[in-house]
Amino acid sequence: MIRAYAAHEAKGKLTPFEYDPGELKPDQVEIDVIACGVCHSDLSMLHNDWHNSSYPLVPGHEVVGTIAQIGNHVTHLKVGDTVGLGWFSGSCMTCDQCMGGDHNLCPSGEQTIVGRHGGFANKVRCNAEWATLLPPGLDIKKAGPLFCGGITVFNPIVQFDVKPTDRVGVVGIGGLGHLAIQFLNKWGCEVTAFTSSDSKRNEALGMGAHQVVNSRDDGQLDKIAGSLDFVLSTVNVDLNWPAFLNVLRPKGRLHTVGAVLSPIPVAAFSLIGGQKSLSGSPLGSPATVRKMLDFCARHQIAPVTEHFPMSQVNEALAHLEAGKARYRIVLENDFA
Amino acid sequence: MIRAYAAHEAKGKLTPFEYDPGELKPDQVEIDVIACGVCHSDLSMLHNDWHNSSYPLVPGHEVVGTIAQIGNHVTHLKVGDTVGLGWFSGSCMTCDQCMGGDHNLCPSGEQTIVGRHGGFANKVRCNAEWATLLPPGLDIKKAGPLFCGGITVFNPIVQFDVKPTDRVGVVGIGGLGHLAIQFLNKWGCEVTAFTSSDSKRNEALGMGAHQVVNSRDDGQLDKIAGSLDFVLSTVNVDLNWPAFLNVLRPKGRLHTVGAVLSPIPVAAFSLIGGQKSLSGSPLGSPATVRKMLDFCARHQIAPVTEHFPMSQVNEALAHLEAGKARYRIVLENDFA
Repeated sequence: MIRAYAAHEAKGKLTPFEYDPGELKPDQVEIDVIACGVCHSDLSMLHNDWHNSSYPLVPGHEVVGTIAQIGNHVTHLKVGDTVGLGWFSGSCMTCDQCMGGDHNLCPSGEQTIVGRHGGFANKVRCNAEWATLLPPGLDIKKAGPLFCGGITVFNPIVQFDVKPTDRVGVVGIGGLGHLAIQFLNKWGCEVTAFTSSDSKRNEALGMGAHQVVNSRDDGQLDKIAGSLDFVLSTVNVDLNWPAFLNVLRPKGRLHTVGAVLSPIPVAAFSLIGGQKSLSGSPLGSPATVRKMLDFCARHQIAPVTEHFPMSQVNEALAHLEAGKARYRIVLENDFA
Repeated sequence: MIRAYAAHEAKGKLTPFEYDPGELKPDQVEIDVIACGVCHSDLSMLHNDWHNSSYPLVPGHEVVGTIAQIGNHVTHLKVGDTVGLGWFSGSCMTCDQCMGGDHNLCPSGEQTIVGRHGGFANKVRCNAEWATLLPPGLDIKKAGPLFCGGITVFNPIVQFDVKPTDRVGVVGIGGLGHLAIQFLNKWGCEVTAFTSSDSKRNEALGMGAHQVVNSRDDGQLDKIAGSLDFVLSTVNVDLNWPAFLNVLRPKGRLHTVGAVLSPIPVAAFSLIGGQKSLSGSPLGSPATVRKMLDFCARHQIAPVTEHFPMSQVNEALAHLEAGKARYRIVLENDFA
């Protein structure tokens, strides 16, 4: 049996829950959870915001742990290896996306906490392709958030070929944004952090932002019009989108990884004149996760974390929901 | 004096008009107009739709003609050369965009019919960088529409690196779309034409479309969901945008060159899941215009045109405004 924490209804408290995962499938691995990050998507799933939650629901998709068991077909991992697991737990491995290295875009991809149980548990399973070895030099207990928050913002930097010579912006200095600032600083870019929180200004500068702009101050946005090559929005609230398209240089891109619910209104003219793009993306492929981990080890990039024992999962979720997390919460496995 | 046709107020009829262009500037050339295409943007400017028209207004920005005079600094063109001129008539030549080969994105670019006089005339001037030599093998009288309608749809194919292996769509089979179909067919792509006009179905197939889909039929759009890598919209009317984002494959791009006036509502989720992009672009650089002309000569690509003498400019504009142009109108210079 796997021991976990589950909600039994939308917005319900998490309570201890055991389930029988059945026989390990040939392509799966089972991970002994060391720690698991807490992501806004866990809250969205707990609240059934996306209408795809099923209960009992065991959240948790920023797992770090050691391989406990491997399926018969698994050859590149062995028991005892330290690995991470993020939002995706399986891909078909045969579609054009999987065969092209874009497993994160597999149309039939399995998601760790959608229709199956996640990492707020002592063990969790996934297909072997989504269990990624941690390179030496990473702090294991802090690494979990890289597997969702981290890769979500690292991936578009790779996908859209952001250049070290670029001037870039990061909107929202939270679990994702604080990692994006670190990545882009080490990438060589000039980094502008956008936040509406004055209290985060100095922290953003400390993480590697070169300047901080108030994302709610249209005058400040106007002042930097036409200056940025790439703006990465991590927020899921409405912004003054036309103003953000306007801060882009010609050929610039506004990229959102925040699942903002109201449609973004885009005037065709605001794209046409400067050949601008608006885009979005979900996490990254296993190969890109490996690149990210190497980059983190090389540059000593790590999430800024607050740690709770897993038994205090409800307190941790409340802390996150109150907007108090600085900047990512990690639950440490304290199952007896 | 240059002899032209000008409107003296918004939506006014064009009447004969003469103006003194002054001394030719060192970087300019003067072109004896042979023929000039008629573009929807001429109508938009005549109607002051974009609030940047000044009167008297001489439309015309799809010019083909011969060099009549060159300025002192011009070295790469000579009197008698056959050239084309499109929407842009000047660039600063020093900004990052110009120095980077993207003269069409120059923030201080001069536009042929904005604040100056265009090609519905016996002569027109431009900076030499925007007068592009016609390669051998093009039908001179039909080539004008390539310099606005043509380059507007050719440029994004180059800019966004559309692959011959891609499946692509063209929305709107008009002055721009009928050229996009020809380009993309010769590019090696599988081409889906989207039109709401049954009468254009067979013509689109004749121009190189492999299939035709009714752009107003949501059921037909649903049927091809997830199938196209690149959709180029040439229309300036509202579409079922979510359905068009939905016909894209993962990593797909919906690109608009149509200056649709209402904002396009984009759900972040519709971009994020499949790493999709929405973008726009204006015409193309002089270097890309040259590539396009070479490609047209190599593959015998030409606009399908209807010809009017320039003295019948008002009849030609009425024909265009009535939606009757098949597919691009060209005015032939008949000044005595």
